[in-house]
Amino acid sequence: MTIINLDHISSNPLLPEVKKSMIEAINRDYANPSSQHKAGEEAAEVLDNARQSVAQLINSASAKEIVFTSSGTESINHAVKGVAMANLEKGKHIVTSNVEHNAVIRSIKRLKPLDYKATSISVDEYGRVTPNDVADAISDDTIMVSIMHSNNETGTIQPIREIGKITKEKKVIFHVDAVDSVGVVPIDVQALGVDLLSFASNPFYGPTGVGGLYIRRGTRVFPVLDGGIQENNKRGGTENLIGIIGMGVAADLAGRDMDARLAHFRKLKDLLLEELPNYIDEYLINTHPEFSLPNLLSISIKYIEGESVMLMLDDDDIAVSTRSACATGSLRASHVLISLGLSHADAQGTLVISLGIDNLEQDIIAFLQSLKTVVTTLRDISPLYKKSSQA
Amino acid sequence: MTIINLDHISSNPLLPEVKKSMIEAINRDYANPSSQHKAGEEAAEVLDNARQSVAQLINSASAKEIVFTSSGTESINHAVKGVAMANLEKGKHIVTSNVEHNAVIRSIKRLKPLDYKATSISVDEYGRVTPNDVADAISDDTIMVSIMHSNNETGTIQPIREIGKITKEKKVIFHVDAVDSVGVVPIDVQALGVDLLSFASNPFYGPTGVGGLYIRRGTRVFPVLDGGIQENNKRGGTENLIGIIGMGVAADLAGRDMDARLAHFRKLKDLLLEELPNYIDEYLINTHPEFSLPNLLSISIKYIEGESVMLMLDDDDIAVSTRSACATGSLRASHVLISLGLSHADAQGTLVISLGIDNLEQDIIAFLQSLKTVVTTLRDISPLYKKSSQA
Repeated sequence: MTIINLDHISSNPLLPEVKKSMIEAINRDYANPSSQHKAGEEAAEVLDNARQSVAQLINSASAKEIVFTSSGTESINHAVKGVAMANLEKGKHIVTSNVEHNAVIRSIKRLKPLDYKATSISVDEYGRVTPNDVADAISDDTIMVSIMHSNNETGTIQPIREIGKITKEKKVIFHVDAVDSVGVVPIDVQALGVDLLSFASNPFYGPTGVGGLYIRRGTRVFPVLDGGIQENNKRGGTENLIGIIGMGVAADLAGRDMDARLAHFRKLKDLLLEELPNYIDEYLINTHPEFSLPNLLSISIKYIEGESVMLMLDDDDIAVSTRSACATGSLRASHVLISLGLSHADAQGTLVISLGIDNLEQDIIAFLQSLKTVVTTLRDISPLYKKSSQA
Repeated sequence: MTIINLDHISSNPLLPEVKKSMIEAINRDYANPSSQHKAGEEAAEVLDNARQSVAQLINSASAKEIVFTSSGTESINHAVKGVAMANLEKGKHIVTSNVEHNAVIRSIKRLKPLDYKATSISVDEYGRVTPNDVADAISDDTIMVSIMHSNNETGTIQPIREIGKITKEKKVIFHVDAVDSVGVVPIDVQALGVDLLSFASNPFYGPTGVGGLYIRRGTRVFPVLDGGIQENNKRGGTENLIGIIGMGVAADLAGRDMDARLAHFRKLKDLLLEELPNYIDEYLINTHPEFSLPNLLSISIKYIEGESVMLMLDDDDIAVSTRSACATGSLRASHVLISLGLSHADAQGTLVISLGIDNLEQDIIAFLQSLKTVVTTLRDISPLYKKSSQA
């Protein structure tokens, strides 16, 4: 039984070359990269090579600016809490947006006992921040701006470069959660003018449980995981070398194949957008038409529940998601969708379709055919839909 | 070229069964365990099985008390910082010892802006804490005691059960760093009376970059990695499923084979201790003769530098270490060895020999023969040794 995977935002399969590199690493039994004997030095070299690959993918000025972490979430915690802890004397205010990942929102909340306050900026109907709003929110007490590059539920991409100019001018540290962008769309940390950038390996077909944090040289930030002198003394804990090796290979391939992947995604997303009205009606598109990930589309289908659609599609062996996998099980409507101005009912009717390099045009058509049946079935039993039709 | 590995404390090779399980996991391309579709549920089940295996290894009352982390260091940060953040109203004092891992020491230091203070208890010549000293150090303001189970540089095991009785009586949260004990010696969290216990996968031949934290039900602790609702809402970040699967298999095998491994280690360590005086003289044993890990021996060889010994043994393809791999590169003498009362000179002459299940008696003899030559060579050029011989 083959599943049509349109839920790549939750989990990507590993590339064959990544699998091969990880299996080789498993069989090699590398020593601890911190050990000073020959075996340790060999492991340290392998770790360094992966760091170079990742640095190149985001155009970091030096591989030393890359810290390997266990996830995008750890990278974000490191950036947000680490900057706050290291700049207590400078100020107690952070600027962020209403559509950030919970890793950002909850990390900021965790700083409350240190008297940190945050200003959270509202977004437009696609979830986009206006750079001027960021400028207006920055005060003398502001130490950091944390705004995501792309949203994991809508795919909308923020005007990071414009915000970077503002933070640079106002001398405020700029952290960007680019977990769903790095390796998917071109990211150049120098051109964007960011100080810290969080990312993860799985969005570009590396293993889960491995991430990275770019820390521009000279940025004042403390570790979130204190301990040994690993990662240039920026993050304690023996490295997940097998995972890091996989991430390095995935980074090389993401750089090499990015243009081809982007073209592939755009073709499939265009097909989906073009064909969608031929299969269902009465839906909203939450993804920005221009500034968005090429592999993600969020739609809110009126009068029905996204979770029911997801489960019925699952019966047809089609995987989609309704929200961030990190928030599964939460009973509350997605804070991201509510921030776009969606009603609770429309937010509940949301589906996230996220494409992968393995998807084919026929997957899109199979999804649309299945979706049509599911939506018709659900609307037939929806009291909301009946009321609307009678009106 | 085969290396004789007597540096298992820095890195253990993976067991064949662990390798097999991880390679299978790589080839399976599991979905995100948080996803609600069929593929996600399958991944969640695999994650749950590994959690059961780990819970069983430490006799946790429920698998729900286990949180998977990225390392022993993360587990320790989670415990120390998480308890402190969650108990701000209750008190601002922590009791610890002078020989803890830097993950504990630095996590406590990081709490200074929250006005936390710590009392650090001194140890005997083998690095052992006296339980009464812990009792004496606890005040009304104390919220937590953090004492390690075994020390990663000396192998000495602390009287955890006795301390557990004290913390229970005084109603103080008890965290135990058992990173180098879990899976090596029997650990029963219920019998020990601990509230939190940090551990890692590699000491029992699972992969690096995977650890766990036992949190007794009802213990007040916040996450150190805030974000999604993974790990029963106790730790954000998509799981390192491949590593966790390996850890689960390693836990099953550690439970099954523990007695045989212990017997094997004891035989080799006895041989090492018996034969040592036949090869070198003028050394100190830092490891407790009775209460210590069966697979680790710390010796301080007079008049020479441990690092030189380590590098010369490396030329003979024998790997040992001189200190915690997490502290490699530090120019300061090990805080653990200084706490035992060693002089700086003796501390610099320290070697850590850590045994693995793959070691044979002939490895011990080969090491001793090589060590004899190395020590003789180094002492011949040591001004300290000449002075001592003339005295």
